[in-house]
Amino acid sequence: MKKHNFSAGPSILPEEVFKKASQAVLDYNNSGLSILEISHRSKDFIAVMEEAQSLALELSGLSGKGYKALFLSGGARLEFDRIPYNLMKVNGKAAYIDSGSWAAGAIKEAKIFGDVTVVGSSKEDNYSYIPKGYTIPEDADYFHCTSNNTIYGTQMQEFPETNVPIVCDMSSDIFSRTIDFSKFGIIYAGAQKNIGPAGVTLLLIKEEILGKTGRTIPGMLDYQQHIEKESMYNTPPVFATYTAMLTLQWIKANGGIENIEKKNNEKAALLYNEIDRNSLFTGTAIKEDRSKMNVTFVTVEGVNTDAFDKLCKDAGISGINGHRSVGGYRASIYNAMPIESVKVLISVMQEFEKSFK
Amino acid sequence: MKKHNFSAGPSILPEEVFKKASQAVLDYNNSGLSILEISHRSKDFIAVMEEAQSLALELSGLSGKGYKALFLSGGARLEFDRIPYNLMKVNGKAAYIDSGSWAAGAIKEAKIFGDVTVVGSSKEDNYSYIPKGYTIPEDADYFHCTSNNTIYGTQMQEFPETNVPIVCDMSSDIFSRTIDFSKFGIIYAGAQKNIGPAGVTLLLIKEEILGKTGRTIPGMLDYQQHIEKESMYNTPPVFATYTAMLTLQWIKANGGIENIEKKNNEKAALLYNEIDRNSLFTGTAIKEDRSKMNVTFVTVEGVNTDAFDKLCKDAGISGINGHRSVGGYRASIYNAMPIESVKVLISVMQEFEKSFK
Repeated sequence: MKKHNFSAGPSILPEEVFKKASQAVLDYNNSGLSILEISHRSKDFIAVMEEAQSLALELSGLSGKGYKALFLSGGARLEFDRIPYNLMKVNGKAAYIDSGSWAAGAIKEAKIFGDVTVVGSSKEDNYSYIPKGYTIPEDADYFHCTSNNTIYGTQMQEFPETNVPIVCDMSSDIFSRTIDFSKFGIIYAGAQKNIGPAGVTLLLIKEEILGKTGRTIPGMLDYQQHIEKESMYNTPPVFATYTAMLTLQWIKANGGIENIEKKNNEKAALLYNEIDRNSLFTGTAIKEDRSKMNVTFVTVEGVNTDAFDKLCKDAGISGINGHRSVGGYRASIYNAMPIESVKVLISVMQEFEKSFK
Repeated sequence: MKKHNFSAGPSILPEEVFKKASQAVLDYNNSGLSILEISHRSKDFIAVMEEAQSLALELSGLSGKGYKALFLSGGARLEFDRIPYNLMKVNGKAAYIDSGSWAAGAIKEAKIFGDVTVVGSSKEDNYSYIPKGYTIPEDADYFHCTSNNTIYGTQMQEFPETNVPIVCDMSSDIFSRTIDFSKFGIIYAGAQKNIGPAGVTLLLIKEEILGKTGRTIPGMLDYQQHIEKESMYNTPPVFATYTAMLTLQWIKANGGIENIEKKNNEKAALLYNEIDRNSLFTGTAIKEDRSKMNVTFVTVEGVNTDAFDKLCKDAGISGINGHRSVGGYRASIYNAMPIESVKVLISVMQEFEKSFK
């Protein structure tokens, strides 16, 4: 049975990426060797790393603008520590927005390193909106935000104007929409939503903001070391980087971010329209901050969800349970999610509604 | 043409591991989903992580002995920082052996955290032997060693008796030979030699040695956090962990470490015998410390190596160039290397010698 995978991450990737990655595990580029057994210092892999970095800069429009792209292991959560290590001066301070669980995790880590000002928070309202109208202190070493809150289904629609370097966790919406990436000092994203499998993190770093903290930074935590060694300071996650490269190739071949954004807008509009129309469901995020990646919703009071769960299962829909911390439903409709799968979900929602009448 | 892959890492894995991993990228366990798109919180993947951890404890004989097995991302080099963070007391000290480039890298990182005593070093002799006869200070917080030096082809044949917790980087010989693993406080190993692809690190940690430093440890660097969350503190490297699990299954199915060790001894003996017999080659490590994983050798003076390189290429031999920092040759003959490939290399060495007569 055809599966419709709405998992929040690791999540669906393009079918052709799976096919190429699977073939590469058996025999990479007709080399007679698996991608899993080639040296990261081989010409074959260096070409992969270079293409991945170059595609990331090209898709973001950052080529030639003083940015470096890195593909590192450790997980986006490791950046919660690397960022203050690399940007927060000794006795300095940083400004953060608390817009969800991951943002709160980043704040907790930054506090280990120094003074953190939380300039806005929606925690009291269960993170159902993006904090706005805040002021970023001009003496902050950096400002940190989370562009899309995977668990709560909210997304920043715009980013602040400030002279302070903006650091943004774009793990769950990177390369899903056109953005002026040059507004940011550091963008980071775990690959496992829009740009690859779990096991690799993309960083886009404006080089001039580094080297100003006065801290002694351990080697693996030092962005300058990774930049100098072009993501090869240690053995990189070869297969995850290769699969990320394939996914970036797919984005480029499919009309780049501009075209991907059109499709993402269409998918999100269809699904939110159904949630708003259907008498059995309600969205959980406020409308103006709704995420086009993670669509969160619940059933209205008094509705037993067992029948809906069964209809989903019978239709091959998987991964739409809400995050274990919040419950409800969450349909993640990342770049690689076909509109056909969204339509299947909508028809199941309609079928469920009919069964109640 | 059949390839004989002597790469030092990432390196050869069992053929059946490549086949199963390739299939899982297309369709994992007949789920209709790729291993790359399933949630790390799914039952399917939790079972993988649990089996990987349990196999690692079983193969090392550490089940039920107060140890935890972790599969983390970040690379073994990240452990160079995590280890002092977790084990070196504030104002404490650690003892290290300097037996090669990786050991030196670990020492450099530890010095960021506190006082480091290098109790033995073979650096002056180009790391051609394992330092011996050293004394570990009784007040050291831990003692760090590297069991096998991938670049120089040396291997510790025995480990010291001490009351200080022993931390060992076993990246390039883990599960290649029977060892009393319970002598160690922490064993860590990048998977990409003997137990999987690049992108995941195995740790075997004796729990009782943690939590004694008085340091505030950033979340991702804190072993106790990873233990508490059973390697799921952040999204783990799903595919690399799955492939490591397949490789551990293969070790178990092939008679466990004891049987693997027999085969490794046989392969190493064949190759070292040829190096010692062949008039054109010399081993670079002293005999008593020779590694059974990385066999390093050079041609005798005045021999042009072009013809040997061509013979190797024609025979499908790849990856035997020495590390870029030392030159010469290095044949890495990890667990998955078939004895047939070693025999092909030996026959090429013999052919080369004949061509000189």
